[in-house]
Amino acid sequence: MTETKARIAILGASGYTGSELVRLLARHPRVEIVALTADRKAGQSMADVFPQFGKLALPKLVTIDEVAWAHVDLAFCALPHGTTQQVIKRVLEAAPHIKMVDLSADFRLRDPGAYEQWYGHAHQALELQQEAVYGLVELYRDDIRKARLIANPGCYTTTAILPVVPLIEAGAIEPEGLVIDAKSGVTGAGRSAKESLLYTEVTDGMHAYGVANHRHTAELDQEYSKAAGRTIVPSFTPHLIPMSRGIYATIYAKTGAGVGAADVHRVLTDFYKSEPFVHVLPLGQVPQTRFVKGSNMIVMGVVADRQPGRVILISTTDNLVKGASGQAVQNMNLVLGFPETLGLEQLALFP
Amino acid sequence: MTETKARIAILGASGYTGSELVRLLARHPRVEIVALTADRKAGQSMADVFPQFGKLALPKLVTIDEVAWAHVDLAFCALPHGTTQQVIKRVLEAAPHIKMVDLSADFRLRDPGAYEQWYGHAHQALELQQEAVYGLVELYRDDIRKARLIANPGCYTTTAILPVVPLIEAGAIEPEGLVIDAKSGVTGAGRSAKESLLYTEVTDGMHAYGVANHRHTAELDQEYSKAAGRTIVPSFTPHLIPMSRGIYATIYAKTGAGVGAADVHRVLTDFYKSEPFVHVLPLGQVPQTRFVKGSNMIVMGVVADRQPGRVILISTTDNLVKGASGQAVQNMNLVLGFPETLGLEQLALFP
Amino acid sequence: MTETKARIAILGASGYTGSELVRLLARHPRVEIVALTADRKAGQSMADVFPQFGKLALPKLVTIDEVAWAHVDLAFCALPHGTTQQVIKRVLEAAPHIKMVDLSADFRLRDPGAYEQWYGHAHQALELQQEAVYGLVELYRDDIRKARLIANPGCYTTTAILPVVPLIEAGAIEPEGLVIDAKSGVTGAGRSAKESLLYTEVTDGMHAYGVANHRHTAELDQEYSKAAGRTIVPSFTPHLIPMSRGIYATIYAKTGAGVGAADVHRVLTDFYKSEPFVHVLPLGQVPQTRFVKGSNMIVMGVVADRQPGRVILISTTDNLVKGASGQAVQNMNLVLGFPETLGLEQLALFP
Amino acid sequence: MTETKARIAILGASGYTGSELVRLLARHPRVEIVALTADRKAGQSMADVFPQFGKLALPKLVTIDEVAWAHVDLAFCALPHGTTQQVIKRVLEAAPHIKMVDLSADFRLRDPGAYEQWYGHAHQALELQQEAVYGLVELYRDDIRKARLIANPGCYTTTAILPVVPLIEAGAIEPEGLVIDAKSGVTGAGRSAKESLLYTEVTDGMHAYGVANHRHTAELDQEYSKAAGRTIVPSFTPHLIPMSRGIYATIYAKTGAGVGAADVHRVLTDFYKSEPFVHVLPLGQVPQTRFVKGSNMIVMGVVADRQPGRVILISTTDNLVKGASGQAVQNMNLVLGFPETLGLEQLALFP
Repeated sequence: MTETKARIAILGASGYTGSELVRLLARHPRVEIVALTADRKAGQSMADVFPQFGKLALPKLVTIDEVAWAHVDLAFCALPHGTTQQVIKRVLEAAPHIKMVDLSADFRLRDPGAYEQWYGHAHQALELQQEAVYGLVELYRDDIRKARLIANPGCYTTTAILPVVPLIEAGAIEPEGLVIDAKSGVTGAGRSAKESLLYTEVTDGMHAYGVANHRHTAELDQEYSKAAGRTIVPSFTPHLIPMSRGIYATIYAKTGAGVGAADVHRVLTDFYKSEPFVHVLPLGQVPQTRFVKGSNMIVMGVVADRQPGRVILISTTDNLVKGASGQAVQNMNLVLGFPETLGLEQLALFP
Repeated sequence: MTETKARIAILGASGYTGSELVRLLARHPRVEIVALTADRKAGQSMADVFPQFGKLALPKLVTIDEVAWAHVDLAFCALPHGTTQQVIKRVLEAAPHIKMVDLSADFRLRDPGAYEQWYGHAHQALELQQEAVYGLVELYRDDIRKARLIANPGCYTTTAILPVVPLIEAGAIEPEGLVIDAKSGVTGAGRSAKESLLYTEVTDGMHAYGVANHRHTAELDQEYSKAAGRTIVPSFTPHLIPMSRGIYATIYAKTGAGVGAADVHRVLTDFYKSEPFVHVLPLGQVPQTRFVKGSNMIVMGVVADRQPGRVILISTTDNLVKGASGQAVQNMNLVLGFPETLGLEQLALFP
Repeated sequence: MTETKARIAILGASGYTGSELVRLLARHPRVEIVALTADRKAGQSMADVFPQFGKLALPKLVTIDEVAWAHVDLAFCALPHGTTQQVIKRVLEAAPHIKMVDLSADFRLRDPGAYEQWYGHAHQALELQQEAVYGLVELYRDDIRKARLIANPGCYTTTAILPVVPLIEAGAIEPEGLVIDAKSGVTGAGRSAKESLLYTEVTDGMHAYGVANHRHTAELDQEYSKAAGRTIVPSFTPHLIPMSRGIYATIYAKTGAGVGAADVHRVLTDFYKSEPFVHVLPLGQVPQTRFVKGSNMIVMGVVADRQPGRVILISTTDNLVKGASGQAVQNMNLVLGFPETLGLEQLALFP
Repeated sequence: MTETKARIAILGASGYTGSELVRLLARHPRVEIVALTADRKAGQSMADVFPQFGKLALPKLVTIDEVAWAHVDLAFCALPHGTTQQVIKRVLEAAPHIKMVDLSADFRLRDPGAYEQWYGHAHQALELQQEAVYGLVELYRDDIRKARLIANPGCYTTTAILPVVPLIEAGAIEPEGLVIDAKSGVTGAGRSAKESLLYTEVTDGMHAYGVANHRHTAELDQEYSKAAGRTIVPSFTPHLIPMSRGIYATIYAKTGAGVGAADVHRVLTDFYKSEPFVHVLPLGQVPQTRFVKGSNMIVMGVVADRQPGRVILISTTDNLVKGASGQAVQNMNLVLGFPETLGLEQLALFP
């Protein structure tokens, strides 16, 4: 007996998170892609936009308005923030049965005031914002299973929250004074044609950007503060690195009273011991972005700092997989009742 | 009822073709890796050598002598040429039941004289050399199914033979005067620590090497001559490109009398119309290495040259997949009676 | 006694050939940059656009109309083709005393018909087109010294003409059947924000483009045909390589009757023995793009092909230096009566 | 009248700092390279080892014992640490007139105990160690002018000391709790053939290394402690980035009581206002490694952190120029009484 396949739409299929969803879902045994949208490229085939899909049978790119929502079970929304909240509101009003995994930042912040502060305008879908569940699976798995609208976390934040929150909750590190020095591959900036993202502007060099004001900081504030039970203001400095994929977070923290690096390490290994997509390295070892490229893993390490009472946490993800589309599929698996790892077992592509 | 899994050994698991075999076979539903060898790293775990495998349950690295051959059904041999022929001879004498897929160059040349000329010494296992089947699946599928020892083709040669041989056989191009300008990613050179392969010596620049004397030329001679029914001497110039994976062959040919580029294109589309791993682009389109990275595909295009009576063929593979370990698994699937595409359906990782 | 400095304008200073001119001219002992134009960025400082010039005293970016032409001795024109011919016509009508080195393609083709065929419209400044001198110094040095308007050659063409023309003229190679397989770094495409030039679309992979129809081919036709005394139609295939700078041309040719690779090599070493910016490698050696990065050199090698009666020529330049701005300064030195190598003696930046 | 040229020897010319010295000195108007040593490559020409020097007239590579010390005025020593101290001791005993600029770590630490702790053995030339001057020009210019033996600083340390020491001295930042998150290009590791430095192990990814125990930390301890007047223990975490050149240091500091980011910025702009090789960006701007590639500049920026009372300092150098060979030439200019910027005015090579 063949199992019924869930019918999937991808809104915003012509960007990198869209193509990554196709890469993962096209080989997922329990789903069928029934709609792909890309407003400006509607009418083209997905292979026109991403020729690596040339041998797949995929639906043509259409506009969002052309989607037959009645025949969709779950939609991934990979649209720019700001417009996303309006699109999702409209779709869910027209087709409330649909499960929605949103990859934008629009529904990640619980506090409408924080949203307004960081994004410069009032939220346009406040009810949905309150309904949405933050889709960081390892922390919110049970809520996600029951959710209709999931706010898939950002790549920086996935990478910087997972190694830190269990430690704050356990009192193993001090939530004050956290420094997150983060490095990102270039796909994190999407596929839009900007001078600053040209090959010649990015290769063979590096630089910081958005220092002290990157919007992902708002998610860190939210989750760290929730874990600490008080307002936490971390330092977060992103850097652009000449690599396609990968987030690498080097996190400097004070340990709690009487806590050493080995204790910090033990908290993390215990917390994540049953997680299929989290790998805590032996104490003192550090990850490389290469260990996760193309896979849904997060790999993290713990090193004692030379300043007494301090510890260095290092974690890495592929920003397009665990940092975006892979985590979105993981959320989909939960929502649709599939095994959580289904379609997500690719090993890292290295070299 | 669970199907029995074939028991697989990988000889030379610490190199890049070895790790790529593990990447593919660890998720293959019909096999189990029972032995991994790496003489100089025996005793280490595979995760010591390739940390991306840190969450897999894999056998420890051992020496070749430690393998329990009676419990192996098929072995991949990813050892340097020269020593390979002696190792395989020894293993097959001890355990003649074993199917062997060899990734080295040792058993690719049918003519012992050609072997001696290109490799500088007499072949040490002539009987096996005569027994071996050239594992270019799309051309030798039926022979491979019945073979015990398969000589997996080189990466350059896979990429340069598949677009050319059907055209020679059809008389669509002249076999004389062929120019193959080939470009390779750096993994083609393996994982040995040489100054010329350091990051700083390879990045942000390029150069030709082995001009007019690269050993893969011998395979081109053999297969082109076989197709033509006479001795063919192509020009073959490899270049080292700053990319990890990928072979890109730009092939300049005279067309046969009265044959145009559209005819050339039609011959290829007909020849490969049922092949799961061959994608012939529409006439005039050219492939990119990005379309095949991490996948077992070969993508090829045909463009009319501006010199009348000439055509340009362009083809690309991932040298570690269709150019090595993927094709080796494809051969394994044939030999063991599995569906040919099993475990090889990964889509290209782009971006 | 201080020598008077020539007063230099750079039209189109916000692109890569513009910034490369600034890099070279800012340290040139006999010139002073008095005007920098960039229509869309007028009003900004050069350091806003290229922060590496932050410590230099440079004029602000202005529009072309704001330049005080009476106080300019020589202008470099680094504008897009098409508009260039109209700008130069206008400037030279207003200020006929100005020497002009044009880096666009507008004045490179002698034959108005060829221009129209390759660029799709009639030339708008036919008199100037007839006046212009092709600025390939090693072939046209004497004409350049006397010229007012110099058409600086393209990067591909500089690299592919210098190793070939002396051989055609000497009868050492057959001009028919030439195959030029060329590879380019990404700066060759300029600084315009296009999706296809994004870091993530270019890095870690490669592809051919403009196969059999790239516009630089017209320059090859012109110079090869001139050398041969009859119409020559070479094959020319450009490829985009993940490197910032560098052109690499692998050229396949038939040798003349009775001519071997050593003869070919001797013709080139003789022809270029006194040239400061040409380096002919010993017979059988091949260049790397790294040998010329940031320098005004062209390096070339000769290798015997394995097909009898054929030879492989390989040459490389930095597309922004000898392939554009460096050669433009070399032309300026000739026109202004300075020593030809002045300001151009930088050694390659490797690693 | 021609000025006499200083006669220069380079010990260890076959490594990257050696070739970079040749790049700079070959065009320096006041010096002549009279000896190049490379023990294992003695007998070869420099162009065999670095073909970009193929048109230069340079002395052959010889062993150190073959150098005619009587005819040398100044030597650069670019040898591995450990052996360096013995070589320099031997040379200066035989030829005490020679000025010596040492690029190794052997003479950088003032405290023999610190040397022994970080390098694992007692220093073998203690008298010279006491004589040596730390060659960080902007801080020790007057001492350097009178020195015979100069310990050229490390690349990480140059980049991390120059933005910090003036601030500690001015009380603008707290010396305790400093976090230096540093990123390095691959040439920082030299030209030795190690698996971990292969192109395929470094490209398109990144990782931390030497966390909390990198030897350059000892120089930071020394200079920060000297500035503070008490023992300072900073956190220092280096990362390997896929770029050839460049050090990028992101430094997190607490400000002094009542000090804001603008005050911090003012201290630096005042301190460095006359320095030809230091560029302090406007407040809030951040540097890129591209701004310094191939040049002797250090560029630094200051950004207010979002944690109150904290500031982020960012600085960058080319590790082979200001971080090694360029600073060495700057030291040479001081020692030999030349203008400090002579031969060092190259602008950054970008793109």
